[in-house]
Amino acid sequence: MRKSVLISLLLVGVVFPKGDADKELLAKAKQFFSPLPKSFPSADNPITPQKVELGRLLFFERRLSVNDMVSCATCHAIEYYYASPAPKQMGALKLQPRHAPTVLNSAGQFVQHWIGNRKDVEDQALQSLTGPPAFGNPSKESVEEKIRKIPYYVELFRKAFPKDKEPITAENIAKAIGAFERTLVTPSRFDDFLKGNTKALTPEEKRGLNTFIEVGCVACHNGALVGGNMYQKFGIYEPYWKYTKSESIDEGRYAVTKKEEDKYVFKVPPLRNVAMTAPYFHDGSVASLEEAVWIMGKVQLGKDLSKEQVRDIVAFLKSLTGKIPEDARKPPILP
Amino acid sequence: MRKSVLISLLLVGVVFPKGDADKELLAKAKQFFSPLPKSFPSADNPITPQKVELGRLLFFERRLSVNDMVSCATCHAIEYYYASPAPKQMGALKLQPRHAPTVLNSAGQFVQHWIGNRKDVEDQALQSLTGPPAFGNPSKESVEEKIRKIPYYVELFRKAFPKDKEPITAENIAKAIGAFERTLVTPSRFDDFLKGNTKALTPEEKRGLNTFIEVGCVACHNGALVGGNMYQKFGIYEPYWKYTKSESIDEGRYAVTKKEEDKYVFKVPPLRNVAMTAPYFHDGSVASLEEAVWIMGKVQLGKDLSKEQVRDIVAFLKSLTGKIPEDARKPPILP
Repeated sequence: MRKSVLISLLLVGVVFPKGDADKELLAKAKQFFSPLPKSFPSADNPITPQKVELGRLLFFERRLSVNDMVSCATCHAIEYYYASPAPKQMGALKLQPRHAPTVLNSAGQFVQHWIGNRKDVEDQALQSLTGPPAFGNPSKESVEEKIRKIPYYVELFRKAFPKDKEPITAENIAKAIGAFERTLVTPSRFDDFLKGNTKALTPEEKRGLNTFIEVGCVACHNGALVGGNMYQKFGIYEPYWKYTKSESIDEGRYAVTKKEEDKYVFKVPPLRNVAMTAPYFHDGSVASLEEAVWIMGKVQLGKDLSKEQVRDIVAFLKSLTGKIPEDARKPPILP
Repeated sequence: MRKSVLISLLLVGVVFPKGDADKELLAKAKQFFSPLPKSFPSADNPITPQKVELGRLLFFERRLSVNDMVSCATCHAIEYYYASPAPKQMGALKLQPRHAPTVLNSAGQFVQHWIGNRKDVEDQALQSLTGPPAFGNPSKESVEEKIRKIPYYVELFRKAFPKDKEPITAENIAKAIGAFERTLVTPSRFDDFLKGNTKALTPEEKRGLNTFIEVGCVACHNGALVGGNMYQKFGIYEPYWKYTKSESIDEGRYAVTKKEEDKYVFKVPPLRNVAMTAPYFHDGSVASLEEAVWIMGKVQLGKDLSKEQVRDIVAFLKSLTGKIPEDARKPPILP
């Protein structure tokens, strides 16, 4: 990955004459990033308006949890850009093991959860139904029975899954929520820039973008989501906890694979809307974006980023703050 | 109270000729009810746009709680008409002792909380800051310090409390939230009816309103809020738990006064938006409005209401569902 970054940089240097810095930066950026798509479709779960509308209700539905206290929106709250302001949020029965990241754009990731133990958003939603740190239902059947008793949902499930004899199933709950989440896309000024409008970013943001590429952040944080498409060890140069002051040491993906090489390996988080979704890292141990960027330089790149570099990168990251789709800005009133 | 109801009924019968049933019902209703005001002002906490806007942010602000997990909106959620669908909702550190009712129109009550142990909405908000079943902060100072660190709030508090040298205080947090809540008024078709438009209610709703008055519900549930202006023993004819199947017996206001006559006495809850704010009673022990109405007939009036009576009363109660003000339909994005 590092080598290809270097080659790209050289390539870009050759193609553009000095002075046309904006176009050069744009060409460089296009090597690593792409604009957000309109949605994140899935062959297994086609997005339909009926499913999305049902999923939108279910996303806010606390009655999906065993004690009617917790919905998806408890950990992924509109007012915090569909993330949680707590380092770790309480689920129905148990504290969550890691920070609840934003679900905006998250359907576009290659896997779900910090340690990649969920295949896609549907898998994430399905397993949440029975997980004690999520909804804590004793079984899929128990939550199905509960939802079947709410007449309004019977009708909506029938419309969303017209071919199913019994449409209210845990799998269809997950599909509806997944379909809603697949529409949660938040394009920002950075997308305008990538589409050719070099004036969409301020000089400071452009400097930050350039720094983000030059110092090597882009090696992992790339693609449409500026992350979310690979695993990486957290703490290549030094242990992460030396800087994050984490309360406990999380071994990351090792918990899933039990392979030594997966120790401290996490999914690279997407950086879309990162300025709106503090606190940072898998355990929410760092509150400030400036500090998080500086720590990343230290432990991932072995670099002591200067104040100016951090400031510029943060300015660039703020340009990744997009607009929440209008339908997702307002919670539904539930039946 | 009962006698005055009777006198009113007789009075109305005299004034209007038979046949003009709608006008008669309107005149009868106006004896007991009044339309909602535009807001619920307070001499101690004048409503200003700056305070309301700040209060709206703080209402959704989870960082008011000791662990960043809980905001006012956790127990009073937009999607459930500013109430909770759980019988008892979890606070920051402890389960709430009683059901979290809607805060819509609640500022208009004569006292706050089921057992009247909060003077007004400001007192409720202030005490929530440090109560373990609410926000669980160890002290007022600790939450003040936390909010002072968020630059955006420093500015908003200065604007909302321009005369205060140090505007970020627990008392001002409570005043801002209170000011916001004082604007949460939800007029409905029932108000149109009370203002003279007798066509605003359907025939079934009118029958229900008449039954509501005739059987005696109106003795306690009256005024602009259809409740919320007196205390009453829950279980006049029979113990309430015989019907609600409550898991534990709540002695109500006795916990506050330790007077024998206050055993099982609760504040009469307002019935505005009651159809949208299940489950019912102080402990959320009853899920269906039909059942709740029938139980009230049994234990408060000593009457076994017929299926038709219950159906009509429920129809009337549904006409009390108002529109949530636009500013309160959308959560703010927090700084």
